[in-house]
Amino acid sequence: MNAQAKTFSQDGDYKVADISLADWGRKEIDIAEHEMPGLMSIRRKYQAEAPLKGVRVTGSLHMTIQTAVLIETLKDIGADVRWASCNIFSTQDHAAAAIAASGTPVFAWKGESLEEYWDCTLDALSFPDGKGGFLGPQLVVDDGGDVTLLIHKGYELEKGDESWVNSASGSHEEQVIKNLLKRVAKERPGYWTQVVADWKGVSEETTTGVHRLYQLAEQGKLLIPAINVNDSVTKSKFDNLYGCRESLADGLKRALDVMLAGKVAVVCGYGDVGKGSAASLRAYGARVIVTEIDPICALQAAMEGYEVKTVEDTLGEADIYVTTTGNKDIITLDHMKAMKDQAIVCNIGHFDNEIQVDALYQSGAVRTNIKPQVDKFTFGNGNAIFLLAEGRLVNLGCATGHPSFVMSNSFSNQTLAQIDLWANKDSYESKVYILPKQLDEEVARLHLEKIGVKLTKLSKDQADYLGVAVEGPYKPDHYRY
Amino acid sequence: MNAQAKTFSQDGDYKVADISLADWGRKEIDIAEHEMPGLMSIRRKYQAEAPLKGVRVTGSLHMTIQTAVLIETLKDIGADVRWASCNIFSTQDHAAAAIAASGTPVFAWKGESLEEYWDCTLDALSFPDGKGGFLGPQLVVDDGGDVTLLIHKGYELEKGDESWVNSASGSHEEQVIKNLLKRVAKERPGYWTQVVADWKGVSEETTTGVHRLYQLAEQGKLLIPAINVNDSVTKSKFDNLYGCRESLADGLKRALDVMLAGKVAVVCGYGDVGKGSAASLRAYGARVIVTEIDPICALQAAMEGYEVKTVEDTLGEADIYVTTTGNKDIITLDHMKAMKDQAIVCNIGHFDNEIQVDALYQSGAVRTNIKPQVDKFTFGNGNAIFLLAEGRLVNLGCATGHPSFVMSNSFSNQTLAQIDLWANKDSYESKVYILPKQLDEEVARLHLEKIGVKLTKLSKDQADYLGVAVEGPYKPDHYRY
Amino acid sequence: MNAQAKTFSQDGDYKVADISLADWGRKEIDIAEHEMPGLMSIRRKYQAEAPLKGVRVTGSLHMTIQTAVLIETLKDIGADVRWASCNIFSTQDHAAAAIAASGTPVFAWKGESLEEYWDCTLDALSFPDGKGGFLGPQLVVDDGGDVTLLIHKGYELEKGDESWVNSASGSHEEQVIKNLLKRVAKERPGYWTQVVADWKGVSEETTTGVHRLYQLAEQGKLLIPAINVNDSVTKSKFDNLYGCRESLADGLKRALDVMLAGKVAVVCGYGDVGKGSAASLRAYGARVIVTEIDPICALQAAMEGYEVKTVEDTLGEADIYVTTTGNKDIITLDHMKAMKDQAIVCNIGHFDNEIQVDALYQSGAVRTNIKPQVDKFTFGNGNAIFLLAEGRLVNLGCATGHPSFVMSNSFSNQTLAQIDLWANKDSYESKVYILPKQLDEEVARLHLEKIGVKLTKLSKDQADYLGVAVEGPYKPDHYRY
Amino acid sequence: MNAQAKTFSQDGDYKVADISLADWGRKEIDIAEHEMPGLMSIRRKYQAEAPLKGVRVTGSLHMTIQTAVLIETLKDIGADVRWASCNIFSTQDHAAAAIAASGTPVFAWKGESLEEYWDCTLDALSFPDGKGGFLGPQLVVDDGGDVTLLIHKGYELEKGDESWVNSASGSHEEQVIKNLLKRVAKERPGYWTQVVADWKGVSEETTTGVHRLYQLAEQGKLLIPAINVNDSVTKSKFDNLYGCRESLADGLKRALDVMLAGKVAVVCGYGDVGKGSAASLRAYGARVIVTEIDPICALQAAMEGYEVKTVEDTLGEADIYVTTTGNKDIITLDHMKAMKDQAIVCNIGHFDNEIQVDALYQSGAVRTNIKPQVDKFTFGNGNAIFLLAEGRLVNLGCATGHPSFVMSNSFSNQTLAQIDLWANKDSYESKVYILPKQLDEEVARLHLEKIGVKLTKLSKDQADYLGVAVEGPYKPDHYRY
Repeated sequence: MNAQAKTFSQDGDYKVADISLADWGRKEIDIAEHEMPGLMSIRRKYQAEAPLKGVRVTGSLHMTIQTAVLIETLKDIGADVRWASCNIFSTQDHAAAAIAASGTPVFAWKGESLEEYWDCTLDALSFPDGKGGFLGPQLVVDDGGDVTLLIHKGYELEKGDESWVNSASGSHEEQVIKNLLKRVAKERPGYWTQVVADWKGVSEETTTGVHRLYQLAEQGKLLIPAINVNDSVTKSKFDNLYGCRESLADGLKRALDVMLAGKVAVVCGYGDVGKGSAASLRAYGARVIVTEIDPICALQAAMEGYEVKTVEDTLGEADIYVTTTGNKDIITLDHMKAMKDQAIVCNIGHFDNEIQVDALYQSGAVRTNIKPQVDKFTFGNGNAIFLLAEGRLVNLGCATGHPSFVMSNSFSNQTLAQIDLWANKDSYESKVYILPKQLDEEVARLHLEKIGVKLTKLSKDQADYLGVAVEGPYKPDHYRY
Repeated sequence: MNAQAKTFSQDGDYKVADISLADWGRKEIDIAEHEMPGLMSIRRKYQAEAPLKGVRVTGSLHMTIQTAVLIETLKDIGADVRWASCNIFSTQDHAAAAIAASGTPVFAWKGESLEEYWDCTLDALSFPDGKGGFLGPQLVVDDGGDVTLLIHKGYELEKGDESWVNSASGSHEEQVIKNLLKRVAKERPGYWTQVVADWKGVSEETTTGVHRLYQLAEQGKLLIPAINVNDSVTKSKFDNLYGCRESLADGLKRALDVMLAGKVAVVCGYGDVGKGSAASLRAYGARVIVTEIDPICALQAAMEGYEVKTVEDTLGEADIYVTTTGNKDIITLDHMKAMKDQAIVCNIGHFDNEIQVDALYQSGAVRTNIKPQVDKFTFGNGNAIFLLAEGRLVNLGCATGHPSFVMSNSFSNQTLAQIDLWANKDSYESKVYILPKQLDEEVARLHLEKIGVKLTKLSKDQADYLGVAVEGPYKPDHYRY
Repeated sequence: MNAQAKTFSQDGDYKVADISLADWGRKEIDIAEHEMPGLMSIRRKYQAEAPLKGVRVTGSLHMTIQTAVLIETLKDIGADVRWASCNIFSTQDHAAAAIAASGTPVFAWKGESLEEYWDCTLDALSFPDGKGGFLGPQLVVDDGGDVTLLIHKGYELEKGDESWVNSASGSHEEQVIKNLLKRVAKERPGYWTQVVADWKGVSEETTTGVHRLYQLAEQGKLLIPAINVNDSVTKSKFDNLYGCRESLADGLKRALDVMLAGKVAVVCGYGDVGKGSAASLRAYGARVIVTEIDPICALQAAMEGYEVKTVEDTLGEADIYVTTTGNKDIITLDHMKAMKDQAIVCNIGHFDNEIQVDALYQSGAVRTNIKPQVDKFTFGNGNAIFLLAEGRLVNLGCATGHPSFVMSNSFSNQTLAQIDLWANKDSYESKVYILPKQLDEEVARLHLEKIGVKLTKLSKDQADYLGVAVEGPYKPDHYRY
Repeated sequence: MNAQAKTFSQDGDYKVADISLADWGRKEIDIAEHEMPGLMSIRRKYQAEAPLKGVRVTGSLHMTIQTAVLIETLKDIGADVRWASCNIFSTQDHAAAAIAASGTPVFAWKGESLEEYWDCTLDALSFPDGKGGFLGPQLVVDDGGDVTLLIHKGYELEKGDESWVNSASGSHEEQVIKNLLKRVAKERPGYWTQVVADWKGVSEETTTGVHRLYQLAEQGKLLIPAINVNDSVTKSKFDNLYGCRESLADGLKRALDVMLAGKVAVVCGYGDVGKGSAASLRAYGARVIVTEIDPICALQAAMEGYEVKTVEDTLGEADIYVTTTGNKDIITLDHMKAMKDQAIVCNIGHFDNEIQVDALYQSGAVRTNIKPQVDKFTFGNGNAIFLLAEGRLVNLGCATGHPSFVMSNSFSNQTLAQIDLWANKDSYESKVYILPKQLDEEVARLHLEKIGVKLTKLSKDQADYLGVAVEGPYKPDHYRY
């Protein structure tokens, strides 16, 4: 009932699916570099200075071609990098191979089991200390917060609080984490305390991980400074929106080659991800129905001409369901049972619990695997649904994730956040920060030339009239774009 | 060179173009009420309680059918209202007539001269005290900040600072204001001081007025609490965006009946107003070029497929220019001289200084009035351009402004802000406030049923998972929608 | 229960609403000339040659600014023109005044009664013979076929067939026509026979009129050659589609200023007019439902993401109804009674019988006139609907029709058809013809430069490969564009 | 310099890449059947009757999953089928395997050499006569006309005209065909004459093949009746338009994962394929430039807001080039040399000669294969371009072609054409026919229920008013949809 585990190849300090894919990966990395002007510009600007020189950086972020360019940017500015993916299906094996072949320790392949996934996360955290032991990272690049979670939970355990690891688990994955922590407790006593001592900060990529960080901070449990990269405008209003507008359909097409025109598609949630998803499906000629809990977002959807109703009211009518909410139990087993025959169900939010996948597996529905990441479940009444990527991110599980150009924005924010965390490690507190608007504007600026945009320049007189500096920033912090 | 002054009719405490239009105005107010569920719901909720009972409220806001519904809502919840328009061209005369006929003092007609405009503003401020003198408002509903400006400048003068009223004026309008203040100083000594003493707050409608308020607050000169209604999500992300998406084309069509398909249109500025304007023009089949100073907004425009370049680079190519920036000197006289023959120039930002209208008037170009608010200017080289609404808001000058439904959102925010200012008049400080998110969500909620939206409800379990209350608010304050 | 009849001014051989509007009309004609490059190019090409020199041309076509440019084009190439409108509401009075003032007999004003309408049609047909009698036209420009109908019916009567004029009439308008024919029979015996003798052909503008012509031809009753201008690609695929995409919303906005975003709109019929109407409404953020009888057009609608169902299934859900079918009884009285309160009902097809307007008038619903061409009907249950332009073309009745640029295409076809009919009057038979593709392409070509289009030129080698001439025509006749 | 030839597996009367893929192919065929209601409905209707019982049918059409459903439909209604692909890259190997495994002779794999391609075509034509020799097909399903070409050329040769086979060849492929014909002439004397004798007709799928047929007919050389399936409305206005709207982006994404938003894309040709391509690219946020030779199509593009200019004027500005013209030499070597670094060049027209691929191969540019069907060519100046699918149909070469639902329309037309050709084999002449409108409407009707469309029914009264039958057909033949 789990991901199709692959064996991995490992001739050195890496675990990848097939190291022979490195050449192909390198060719695609070369192509991606042309599409990632922000990262390349940061390399040029900081290469000589090497602001992360010798800094141990652990990354837990989808191991794709785009991430390869991020990794090599971090290395170019001096960092000592180890990497894992943050999703069992999102690794592009040729990207991982190219990174491994270039000598950077990477632990990721498409189709990990959950046990393998968390082992890889630990591998990415474990910098050999040269004496047979391990040091932890000084900085973390996180996506979804799994590294941050693991360290915090490990630290909690070492501080003597065993309540969580001994509690009943709500999911298989939760138990896997607990088992890992127990094993580490035996094998590396005191390890997490030492990790935390060296750890200077985390920059977090995604809505869900950021949400976890704010919760930790509110509870007073956050151990390090955190930069919320997700809420840079050039991240959440770009990657989440324009990235999904491109990659959702890509996932659907590569999975099932389905005609979208004429179909009825339900997009659950109308945040940035939902807005991009709905726009894409409509552009293909699908009729899109939106579900929302938030009256403001619901009104936005209505103003764009989408019908807004509940999932329940669409059952039997809709052909495609996409969850984008960041919440859980959006598509329940009961929903799936009541859907139109051959309905397609997928998720493009960070976690797979938006769809009740476990309940589906245990429902007695007959599972037929069509091809990797595409499964058909046939219910007793004869109706079938298709579940994509086992409910995990469909764009990464069934296609290759967001395209390079938009990720260059997100990853430029990540890199600037890493530089900033290290440079100001002595002044940051254990809180959640957002990058200053000036950096946000700078990230945008780095991407304009590539696509031929020519900015207008304020005159001094105009700037004074507006009460801003000629070179920006131009908007108040509450501006929504 | 000025607006076409109309005579006005006045049989009582009002000045309107033609009181006989009242019946027609009333019919359209009745229609608008069906399209403004937010205001009607507020009436139902607060009518009995009458939270503004006896409160003197001055409004300076486009005197349209929609505003008539706002005025009558304020009256329904107890207020004593006097009203002026905030733009010489934006009054709908049948709306003003209906309001006057119903006994509410209103001072507004389409096509005021600047002198008349500021006199009307003063009229709206002047509540008869029953002894032949005048009291000022206790609350102000402002749009663009002209009432706030007048009171602050009058107060400054009475406090002994005569520097401004005696300085050289940068525009005709500036001189008109100074003349008015000097006249009031003679006729009503001490008036402004008394006004300020009674004044408990202002709620401001638009980006430009809000900008003025923040500047006053930064300079420590703000005399009263102010609520920034513009930056409620249900205002700036609705009225500015969806309102302009409907009313810009409406203004262009009523002015010149021009085919938009196939034309090249330049939208200066890609904020909310620019986004709505560009979307509308593209939907008609125009090819839209965007100009921007802000790299983030510029990148957004590019991601939507708009070409982004400077005004200079479009001269000779573009057929239509629309300014939406809130800045000045966006379209200069030199630009206009270099435009394609028969180019159309208009503005949908708050002030008319986005286009160098004064310079155009003094340029020697031959002006031919086609019909009210539509002028042709022929330059020496034989080329002509069309200037709409003398550079003032084209949607209000040439059409009827935003439609009722979206204004119901904005005006619900206004009404809730007025209620809040009065209820908490003792606790507010002289700062600029934004309405709490709960009210913002409430405004949206009031508009869903009318358009058939059915919200999904969070379960307690889901709400806990998200860390929000079941009934909201649902998003952190930095969320951008 | 009829149109609001206006008195007309007549100091010479014309009947218009107000001759003093001529200056304003002339200014707008000047503007329109810049937007009608096809007609202006035809003037330049044929002015010297004057191919219609002295030819008597009667036009029955919406008397708008655009039509004024057509009329003056026909005059420029030599024709002796008389004109009426083809719809009681579609005349722009300033356009008619300008034409009258320039000495061309025109008989049209906005808001004719049906009796006046048909009298005007007769006036336009009656060329003074200098001896107190009248000659008929040698060519006819028709839109909807009313002139063609009148002559055919008059001729039939003079040939001794009195069955029709003495039959019971299905509508008030039918009776008006019969009364007119009886009057003419008395006043001008033998008139129609003489008219037919001189008549060399008609060019017909619109789908509905063309349909009538094919029916006449099939019945063997067609008396003259007819050119179907409607089915030129540069007419039906431009004016019907792109014209309506601009003018439908214009009509709705000028009538009721209604917010379209968030509304549910039903477009009845998905032909070219329906396609343009649906696209426009969707672009405004309305949710569009399409009704269709033709499975191909229905499938097209579905491929664009429109929901396709029956009018019955939308009652209570939809806010706006637009008929575009060319068929009758699309919106019945029963439909209107069952609609949502405040629903808007309008028609953009040629005839007003798409909506059961007569039945509505006789239903007992209370009619409230809001303003010209906007009526509210309140049913016994308290629900009300708005009927626009009394069910006649909403874009012409409530706004100013299609914009100039697209009409330049249609009218260039008209003009080329008139030239062709006259030049080849001896070889044409009494059939319905379509303009050759070469002329169709020529019309398009005349409009490219104005909007900056640069065509690619075929090489001889490429032309040979395709088997076409380098200069076109490029497509087989069955090509659908 | 040619396609990457694969070895094929052959245990029986087939040649496919890998027969073990049959199970996967069968699962996807099952899914496709749910998306192809037209074909499934035809099966149900005609299965018992078996109108093609025993008829030998050769198909030359992209061997995809969708085509598999077509093949099995033909078999279900009785036909004896042999199949080849009509493109060296378009075969889906699992589809071919499933068909082979089910006992139908199929000769196709992804990545054939041109020699292999034409051998496969011959294999598909060669029905064993049971005596060691071969019979030809009685009916042909053609796509691009290669089978029709081969038979006509073979027949010409056997009739004694050796001029063509001995002439100099303009391309490698032309020489391959000539070599094949010479070989057949030796191995199977008189074969083509016998084939022609049995051959009752061809139905042709695509614009290019249809064009060839009309040329043959004009030259008086067409040997059999042909049905132009391409110009059924439910083919050219669906598959060409809506199919490309989905499959072009799919090809680009699977090839290069490129971000489309913000890119400048040039679509050469604005026919149905170009319209679909341009719409798709724009929806992704690309800025689309169109090139056209036909003024009507160019004006259509301009009315949709596309910039229309020549390829030359876009060099250095555009990132993506897509040819859709059906013409040759659209993108020349000189164009490619002058393009922006990293420009992407691809074709979605039937033949690869839209791009000067041969000239590119011989230009000295350095070719780097990124992955199958994706090549980078680096010119002497350091700039590189990407060529997709070697200039062949990018949607089939780099993705999986059009989705099932739209192909069900096209293939329903094919099947009805085949049935009709056989049923009326004695009355058809050697001309090119189009299917009657009633069948066209029927094809549409078969696809409505699947996507929830509910048609409105004409009343008898309405049908009479329109002069059509209640059950259709509803439109005149010249109607363009």
